[in-house]
Amino acid sequence: MKVHGYFRSSAAYRVRIALNLKGLDPERAFIHLTKGGGEQFSASYGVLNPQALVPSLVLDDGAVLTQSLAIVEYLDETHPAPPLLPKAPFDRAVVRSFAQVIACDIHPINNLRILGYLKKELGRSEDEKNAWYRHWIAKGLGALEVLVAGHAGRGQFCHGDAPGLADICLVPQIYNAERFDCPLDAYPTLMDITARCRALPAFAAAAPERQPDAA
Amino acid sequence: MKVHGYFRSSAAYRVRIALNLKGLDPERAFIHLTKGGGEQFSASYGVLNPQALVPSLVLDDGAVLTQSLAIVEYLDETHPAPPLLPKAPFDRAVVRSFAQVIACDIHPINNLRILGYLKKELGRSEDEKNAWYRHWIAKGLGALEVLVAGHAGRGQFCHGDAPGLADICLVPQIYNAERFDCPLDAYPTLMDITARCRALPAFAAAAPERQPDAA
Repeated sequence: MKVHGYFRSSAAYRVRIALNLKGLDPERAFIHLTKGGGEQFSASYGVLNPQALVPSLVLDDGAVLTQSLAIVEYLDETHPAPPLLPKAPFDRAVVRSFAQVIACDIHPINNLRILGYLKKELGRSEDEKNAWYRHWIAKGLGALEVLVAGHAGRGQFCHGDAPGLADICLVPQIYNAERFDCPLDAYPTLMDITARCRALPAFAAAAPERQPDAA
Repeated sequence: MKVHGYFRSSAAYRVRIALNLKGLDPERAFIHLTKGGGEQFSASYGVLNPQALVPSLVLDDGAVLTQSLAIVEYLDETHPAPPLLPKAPFDRAVVRSFAQVIACDIHPINNLRILGYLKKELGRSEDEKNAWYRHWIAKGLGALEVLVAGHAGRGQFCHGDAPGLADICLVPQIYNAERFDCPLDAYPTLMDITARCRALPAFAAAAPERQPDAA
C-alpha cells in the first residue's frame, strides 16, 4: 500500500490515525497542496485522484481508493483489529453520523479550495474568510457537542472506551479549529475526548507537525 | 420508525430511495426548510437534530439517527435485502467513495444554509450564488464521471447491475443540478445511470415532486 497525503490535510490526518491504530505502516507520498500552485493538480496525481484532493490509497495491485471515510472503513474491514466501529447497527450508525457531521458538514465547507474561491473568485477579505471558517466550525462543533454529550454509549471516547471512526475525525477537526483560533470553550465533551486521544501514540504520531512533509 | 424530511432536500431524497428499495414505509414528518424562516430551527426539531438539518430517523424506541449516509447504511445493515453495498471490501470502499464525492464534496457546499450565507452575510448577488453552485457541481460531477466511467466494476449502475449507495446519492444530486440549470453533457456515464435509476419505481416514487409536502 502507498498513501498519498499532506501533513495539514485533515482528511489525510484521519487516514494516518487509522493506519496507526491498525499498526499499518504503508509507503508514503507527499502531495504539497500549496507549493507551486498545488501538486494535487499535476497530471500524474490526477490519474490517482480526479478530484485533486488528498488522501489517496494505492493498493498493492495498483487499484486506488479515494475519500478518507471510505479508506478508513476499508482499512477497518480488511484489518478488523482493533475495530473502529462498534458491532450493533444502531451504534455503528451513531458513530458514522458523528464522523459525517465533521466530514460532510464542517470540513469540506472550510477546505482550502473553498477558502480560495471566497478570496479569488468572490474577492472576500481575509477577515471575511476567517469569519466564514469560524462560523461553520461553531455550527458544526456546537451540534456535535450536543450529540456526543447526549449519546448514551459515550465512554472515554465518542463511543465506548476505545477510539474509533468518530474520534479519528474529531481530532483533525479540532486541530483545524485551533489553527484558525476558533473559541473551543463551548465544547467541553469534545475537548475532553480530544485530549484523551492526543495522549495515545497512534494519534500523537499522526499529528501534522510530526510528518516528514511538515514545513 | 418515523422519518423527518423535506421534499427538496437531497439528503432526505437519498433516504427515501433507500427506504423504497428496502420496501420500508415508515411514518413521515415534513420539515419545511424555508417556510417561516425554516421549521428545522424549531425547538422541537432541534431536540431530534441539533444540526437543524434533514433527514432524521426516529426509531420505535425513540432513539434518533441523523446524517443520510449513516441512516442508509443503518437501513442496509438492519434490512440486508436487497443489499446497497457490494460484499468485497474494495468494492464497498469504491461505492462509498462515489457516495462521498457527492455527500461530502458537492452537496454540503451547495446546501441551503451555505447559499444563504453567501447572500446574507457576504452580500453576494444571485448570479454569484448561481456561479458558486455550478462551479462545485462541475468540479464534483466532473471528477465523479471519471471515477465511475473508469470503475472496472461498473455495470448498469455505478457498481454492478443493481442500484446501491452510490446511485442513491447520484440521482438526488442530478436533480439539484437540473434545478440550477447546470450543463450535464459532460457526464454521459452518470446521466445514463441516472436515467436507468429513474425508470425504477423505488427511485421514481422518491422524487421530490411526488412527495406530499411538495409545494
